[in-house]
Amino acid sequence: MILAYDGTNYVGWQTQPNGITVQETVEHALLEVTKQQIALHGSGRTDSGVHAKAQVAHFDTDVRMAADKFAIALNMHLPPDIRVLYTEECDPEFHARFCAKKKQYCYRLHVAPHADVFSRRYALQLHHIPDFEAMQAAAKDVIGTHDFRAFMSSGTTMENTVRTVESSEWLRDGANWTYTVTGTGFLYNMVRILVGTMLAIGAHQLPVDAIRKALETLDRSDAGPTAPAHGLTLARVLYPDFDTEEVLSRER
Amino acid sequence: MILAYDGTNYVGWQTQPNGITVQETVEHALLEVTKQQIALHGSGRTDSGVHAKAQVAHFDTDVRMAADKFAIALNMHLPPDIRVLYTEECDPEFHARFCAKKKQYCYRLHVAPHADVFSRRYALQLHHIPDFEAMQAAAKDVIGTHDFRAFMSSGTTMENTVRTVESSEWLRDGANWTYTVTGTGFLYNMVRILVGTMLAIGAHQLPVDAIRKALETLDRSDAGPTAPAHGLTLARVLYPDFDTEEVLSRER
Repeated sequence: MILAYDGTNYVGWQTQPNGITVQETVEHALLEVTKQQIALHGSGRTDSGVHAKAQVAHFDTDVRMAADKFAIALNMHLPPDIRVLYTEECDPEFHARFCAKKKQYCYRLHVAPHADVFSRRYALQLHHIPDFEAMQAAAKDVIGTHDFRAFMSSGTTMENTVRTVESSEWLRDGANWTYTVTGTGFLYNMVRILVGTMLAIGAHQLPVDAIRKALETLDRSDAGPTAPAHGLTLARVLYPDFDTEEVLSRER
Repeated sequence: MILAYDGTNYVGWQTQPNGITVQETVEHALLEVTKQQIALHGSGRTDSGVHAKAQVAHFDTDVRMAADKFAIALNMHLPPDIRVLYTEECDPEFHARFCAKKKQYCYRLHVAPHADVFSRRYALQLHHIPDFEAMQAAAKDVIGTHDFRAFMSSGTTMENTVRTVESSEWLRDGANWTYTVTGTGFLYNMVRILVGTMLAIGAHQLPVDAIRKALETLDRSDAGPTAPAHGLTLARVLYPDFDTEEVLSRER
């Protein structure tokens, strides 16, 4: 399935004790539809408050029901801040997490003297104009295969911290600035720390080569703060055989 | 002042007994800032659940405070779903309602098999694709000076039901369809009934000339149903000396 959610009222994707998660909410809808306790496997976790335009998840069931009917049936049992956009039967070998090849995240800013009421849940509201060119130059330094250890939440342990980022770019359309990053995988909080570092660069609190430097020193303290969760959206997941963007645009 | 609000949690602009209104919320913030009980006069009412991208309101005060500081001070005392975007001192003769020359409203649709979680509060979600060309043809019939009595909530009394609509047009950008209408004034529920009629035309439940016919018969029952409030946004108010769009784009 491909699903979208407004992460505002959830403590993230993955089931955990201290709050309601997207995963458990969809698993509950699956229980209502199939009368079976079914485990849902997502392409990866999203943090508390992070949104998804196209998260991918799979589940196994022996219920006899046309695969494309699941989307409509699940939506009848889901709250309005979670929508299943597409369901299809997949190869039994398919695994939403292990088969994912690339992911794309977007981080949205609204840059204006006063906050925007309509995007307040989905974009970080900035009242001072950052240096766009400095942020764009810093974004270019993210591209490539690097050890991103400096851009991982301190306290996390992860054996392999090398990731490949394919594209990393800021776009602005009036007050709406969007950072889009595509890569083979992301460490815990990596996109939010990259954005926090670029925001510090854009505010001239860090030099424009701060990202390049942190990729060399591998030191978390050379990177900037973690940007707030609500600006971040999982935008796209790419698999060898399909891409959420292509499936959704075909469906529209 | 120019202000924006997400109308979801308000029973409209104007103070009334059965729920919290935008007007009383801003008047309360004015009390906090000035320690004076100040009456706020809006350019017009918006219904329960209707949003505003640019509502205009004025108030009188003898508090000594730079006019442009009011926006920042008021926002400190307002909930995040109401933002004052601009404040300036005006001529004592200025009246937000009586001086308004034209208003512009937008009505948003999201047309896709499943609802969009991000626009669900601001756009009507349609799962079947209406006939765009029929709706566009019907929109053209709205333009001009007409007696719009058929497009007024039944039960309302209003002596002069003649209004002039300057532009009336649908635009679509993928799943996002927007109707924009500009006129000298609008009757109670007029935009929502116009949209409801065009949606019925788009679903081939009413003939494409239904609007033209209702403008002749003046009969409410010849028009379509009232479209839901949450798709509607007051987008722009125009005065002889200024236009909210022009002021806000200058401020950005």
